[in-house]
Amino acid sequence: MKALVLEEKMKLSLRDFPIERDEVLGPRDVRIKLHTVGICGSDVHYYTHGGTGVFQVKAPMILGHEASGTVIEIGAEVTSLKVGDRVCMEPGIPDPNSRATRLGLYNIDPAVRFWATPPIHGVLRPSVVHPADFSYKLPDNVSFAEAAMVEPLAVGVHAATKAQVRPGDIALVIGAGPIGLVTALSAVAAGCARVFVSDIDDAKLELAAKLGPISPVNVARQELAREILAATGGWGVEIVFECSGHPAGAQGVFDPLSPGGRVVFIGSQVHPIHYDVGKAMVREARVEHVFRYAHVFPRCVAMLSSGAIDVKPLITRTFDFDESVRAFEIAASAAKGEVKMQIALPQ
Amino acid sequence: MKALVLEEKMKLSLRDFPIERDEVLGPRDVRIKLHTVGICGSDVHYYTHGGTGVFQVKAPMILGHEASGTVIEIGAEVTSLKVGDRVCMEPGIPDPNSRATRLGLYNIDPAVRFWATPPIHGVLRPSVVHPADFSYKLPDNVSFAEAAMVEPLAVGVHAATKAQVRPGDIALVIGAGPIGLVTALSAVAAGCARVFVSDIDDAKLELAAKLGPISPVNVARQELAREILAATGGWGVEIVFECSGHPAGAQGVFDPLSPGGRVVFIGSQVHPIHYDVGKAMVREARVEHVFRYAHVFPRCVAMLSSGAIDVKPLITRTFDFDESVRAFEIAASAAKGEVKMQIALPQ
Amino acid sequence: MKALVLEEKMKLSLRDFPIERDEVLGPRDVRIKLHTVGICGSDVHYYTHGGTGVFQVKAPMILGHEASGTVIEIGAEVTSLKVGDRVCMEPGIPDPNSRATRLGLYNIDPAVRFWATPPIHGVLRPSVVHPADFSYKLPDNVSFAEAAMVEPLAVGVHAATKAQVRPGDIALVIGAGPIGLVTALSAVAAGCARVFVSDIDDAKLELAAKLGPISPVNVARQELAREILAATGGWGVEIVFECSGHPAGAQGVFDPLSPGGRVVFIGSQVHPIHYDVGKAMVREARVEHVFRYAHVFPRCVAMLSSGAIDVKPLITRTFDFDESVRAFEIAASAAKGEVKMQIALPQ
Amino acid sequence: MKALVLEEKMKLSLRDFPIERDEVLGPRDVRIKLHTVGICGSDVHYYTHGGTGVFQVKAPMILGHEASGTVIEIGAEVTSLKVGDRVCMEPGIPDPNSRATRLGLYNIDPAVRFWATPPIHGVLRPSVVHPADFSYKLPDNVSFAEAAMVEPLAVGVHAATKAQVRPGDIALVIGAGPIGLVTALSAVAAGCARVFVSDIDDAKLELAAKLGPISPVNVARQELAREILAATGGWGVEIVFECSGHPAGAQGVFDPLSPGGRVVFIGSQVHPIHYDVGKAMVREARVEHVFRYAHVFPRCVAMLSSGAIDVKPLITRTFDFDESVRAFEIAASAAKGEVKMQIALPQ
Repeated sequence: MKALVLEEKMKLSLRDFPIERDEVLGPRDVRIKLHTVGICGSDVHYYTHGGTGVFQVKAPMILGHEASGTVIEIGAEVTSLKVGDRVCMEPGIPDPNSRATRLGLYNIDPAVRFWATPPIHGVLRPSVVHPADFSYKLPDNVSFAEAAMVEPLAVGVHAATKAQVRPGDIALVIGAGPIGLVTALSAVAAGCARVFVSDIDDAKLELAAKLGPISPVNVARQELAREILAATGGWGVEIVFECSGHPAGAQGVFDPLSPGGRVVFIGSQVHPIHYDVGKAMVREARVEHVFRYAHVFPRCVAMLSSGAIDVKPLITRTFDFDESVRAFEIAASAAKGEVKMQIALPQ
Repeated sequence: MKALVLEEKMKLSLRDFPIERDEVLGPRDVRIKLHTVGICGSDVHYYTHGGTGVFQVKAPMILGHEASGTVIEIGAEVTSLKVGDRVCMEPGIPDPNSRATRLGLYNIDPAVRFWATPPIHGVLRPSVVHPADFSYKLPDNVSFAEAAMVEPLAVGVHAATKAQVRPGDIALVIGAGPIGLVTALSAVAAGCARVFVSDIDDAKLELAAKLGPISPVNVARQELAREILAATGGWGVEIVFECSGHPAGAQGVFDPLSPGGRVVFIGSQVHPIHYDVGKAMVREARVEHVFRYAHVFPRCVAMLSSGAIDVKPLITRTFDFDESVRAFEIAASAAKGEVKMQIALPQ
Repeated sequence: MKALVLEEKMKLSLRDFPIERDEVLGPRDVRIKLHTVGICGSDVHYYTHGGTGVFQVKAPMILGHEASGTVIEIGAEVTSLKVGDRVCMEPGIPDPNSRATRLGLYNIDPAVRFWATPPIHGVLRPSVVHPADFSYKLPDNVSFAEAAMVEPLAVGVHAATKAQVRPGDIALVIGAGPIGLVTALSAVAAGCARVFVSDIDDAKLELAAKLGPISPVNVARQELAREILAATGGWGVEIVFECSGHPAGAQGVFDPLSPGGRVVFIGSQVHPIHYDVGKAMVREARVEHVFRYAHVFPRCVAMLSSGAIDVKPLITRTFDFDESVRAFEIAASAAKGEVKMQIALPQ
Repeated sequence: MKALVLEEKMKLSLRDFPIERDEVLGPRDVRIKLHTVGICGSDVHYYTHGGTGVFQVKAPMILGHEASGTVIEIGAEVTSLKVGDRVCMEPGIPDPNSRATRLGLYNIDPAVRFWATPPIHGVLRPSVVHPADFSYKLPDNVSFAEAAMVEPLAVGVHAATKAQVRPGDIALVIGAGPIGLVTALSAVAAGCARVFVSDIDDAKLELAAKLGPISPVNVARQELAREILAATGGWGVEIVFECSGHPAGAQGVFDPLSPGGRVVFIGSQVHPIHYDVGKAMVREARVEHVFRYAHVFPRCVAMLSSGAIDVKPLITRTFDFDESVRAFEIAASAAKGEVKMQIALPQ
């Protein structure tokens, strides 16, 4: 009954953890045996930095929030799932009665409890109790590995939804990390005729270019706005998705943007950015900001099942649960060529 | 210098027609040598019925409005195109100063002049003078045949745009004729995880099922709403595209629709339909109506070029210009298995 | 401890009714002493017809759902209200875990329990237990009488919200009954420069004309579309609100509508209407349908408090609770000049 | 035949200017005798600074762009206006064939020619030739003075339109200058239940508070976000309109904003601002930017005529044309208590 526990900054243990015997199954909950858990940049950041902003690890905490598994017990009122169902799970649980939740904006309910965000434990452990309403049944043709990709994919799909992509739009994704790539996939699936992806890492850009009608731009060598304007007859792209989280990426969002274009901020920024209101005004830009996702998990599952989106090329490596600590060490080393690493739990 | 002339109902001639020598090239116009022209249901309807509604053929009229060709002369102020450019053309020319046009709604400007709609001639003829602003340059990898499909495709793309498809939506397209099929392609390209297509013709449904994550429903044998509700866990589809133009199709749009769903009417209806306000209310349905398209030709060209949409499977037969009359006879006979027939002009 | 009970069609009693002793106060509920209850057309319809559609009165049922009152007891977890607070109440309680509710569309949750809709009792009785989340605190300057108008007003405000009124729009409201009038008030408050209201009753139109920049059209004497087009330079109105519930009203919605205009169906229709798809297409009309309201009660309270909307002119008569049966008889007689009649309960 | 000419920075002359004899009346133009011209902050800025950004006054230029007048001659094709019509005029003329204009976004067409923006002359002169399509007929009950307010009002109405105000929204307008006040008026007219206006000038705030359900906040004494949150039960305002043009105003837009709220940037910012992406994300803020206005002049005229908006309290002083130079001197001195000063031309 071991869990992957972040004891403190830079110290991980795979050890017994008493949480599970305390987990009570409510009438609308299910108990899920974990199968696959992806390693997210935020997990790695907690490992290497011990926290982020107001969220600091003050007591041992289990990591992991990109997860799939199998239902092994159901609460008395659960009708949507049964024992044996394969599921993926939304890691944030909002207060169902908050004003934001009732408006349908449950992701921005301040009271949301989110896995592997202190003091809430994550799911790199044998099993977890979770609300049935946030556990989504998988069709047979969606693997546990793909299902554990739904969490990061949901960020991209939510961003594409907020951008209100129209068929035939041309978009730019700034940053070719895991979130940049799921956003590029989502933008294409959402109707973009073509997506530019910018980064400074040729290996990442090479992978991006294989994922669809995607054109890489290496900003270490190319001037981004000039390339985009040249490629679009001077008009620019209808949508810019900022996924780099770098100030430089954020400050350049308007230069390649078309009149009437939209910008979506997805990557977190540690400090306030320099934002050119004038450039936004002459384009009457609309700027959206996303915070995780809402209502998109079932959409992601449906798109994976139908083939509308294929995330398999992004899963570059899988570790056994016993190797979890080493997996995090590799993830923390920013290993070349890795996009998404996952951990498979013993079944 | 021959043109395909509808002399009167059921009488077509391939003959000299004096129009071209009268066509003056304005400063913002281009002269285009026609290459490929698709046969539309409306062309066939003019042929077999001599008119539709207020539009009656009272004098000989050249048919054809789904067209591609090559620029052979440009007006003094044209900078966007040059001689030799391959183009497809938007067949309707609005009054640039009308209130609707200025609002961006040029397709519903009552003053629009549309090819092959009396008394405006179509383009089954050697050349035509057209505004450069409504002539769209083709990338090298888009063939003339594909380019002549942009006109019908634009209807589907416009409908998907109006529906505001969100990634992962599930849709139903009622009717598997050419417009139903381009709408299904557009719905998939616009982000639908899955599209149901209904018809009574198994051959059409079989073709539809090959075009992507598309599930056919033969309403001669299956109860449409029951099938859809069963396949969606009782929720229904987020979008219904009515492309059949049949009263029966139109009257059933709400039964398979989800709460908060959208309906788009695309197929023309000869008579007022029976419309169940109560069924629309309990779902708070949003109902959109499309009239041709606006601002989507360049989007369609971009999607054909990038591979986001592939219309080639819909082009089932091509005729030489000399065979035009026979092509229309075949089209009028509702030949089994044909979707889009095109005519290639001599080059 | 009397309640106004509809025993069966056309038979009302003011009598003791055992419901209240059974009402348990849950942890998130409040107990409310009723103060003012408005008489709605649906209450009257149950009285005169014994039911509507699937909702048939099969057992004695208390009427009334437009209500305000005072909190007299609060549940253990309630923090938003306290004893003594004056409130108005939303009469429908959805399942908080349904798919529609979670999307923010709680009004179209099929499981919603709505006061005075069989088998759910209404509130023409001394007190009621209600969820705190659906009970809205009144500022001091909003009277109980105004607060009991929030329920019908919410329909108009919800319709104006769905219409996405833009400042300076010109609208038409078909029907000058209570719902037509609150819709006209809402349309003006939402930004319409001018609102036409049509009816066949000069008394109602005269009242309408006093409520703001509202122009009456008596369709018994004037041809509606012709008047509207003449008054708008041939362009038409940007929005048509259908509040009459009459087939004739519903069938004429597109004739006075501008290109790109919106139609909102608010009035219930007993039978399918004749709907002219072609007229909707040439305008690319967007048609919305409303079902009650969602998320608008606090907005209505805020607008009443700030003076943005004034509903007082619509309250034409108030009865003591003892006179309830007579009040319904008068309401059922369609008394000339009455808009909203209310019943004040003993305090 | 005198005009008010900005000879160079800080040097104004009222003198003969040869422009008018060169103005040719095109077939779709009208010639307008000017009646009233308002003084805008941008006029004053050209006077005191000689330019702004890329727009520098390099040759003598006539000032003034907020104008009303009377048609004295019409072009051959003009049907919408006749000699004697009273009109107000939109000061920017776009290229009708640009991509932005065709999309309906004519205000962000880079080729737009705008009065009193170098090298285009303004209209503090006896007459001007202008396109009929950008000249709007005034109803009898709209005065020339009110009509000359349509230009600044249009900025506020455009901003409220972009914000998609829903009835009952609560908004904050940062800055109580002329643009802040027309924005507050527009926000109320567009459906806001209540509008907070912040500034550091008590005189301006006092005027603001008289314009409707408007609550002043003096940020010299009060902490803006704390006041707003306290007044809204901790939720915040649904919309923030930034009209101050000050970095401090721009940097505080997210603190008082509700979850799912919108921000509209209206005031120009000389330098990039500090923009807190994280605060925008946790609210999933939508940020809009406006550039002048499009399609709103006729809406403003309709709202002035119907009484939906009253701009008269903002016109604080009127000068004869002969006093123009002094009027600008007073305007440049930031005279206490003045909002909008206007100049009346000789008739």
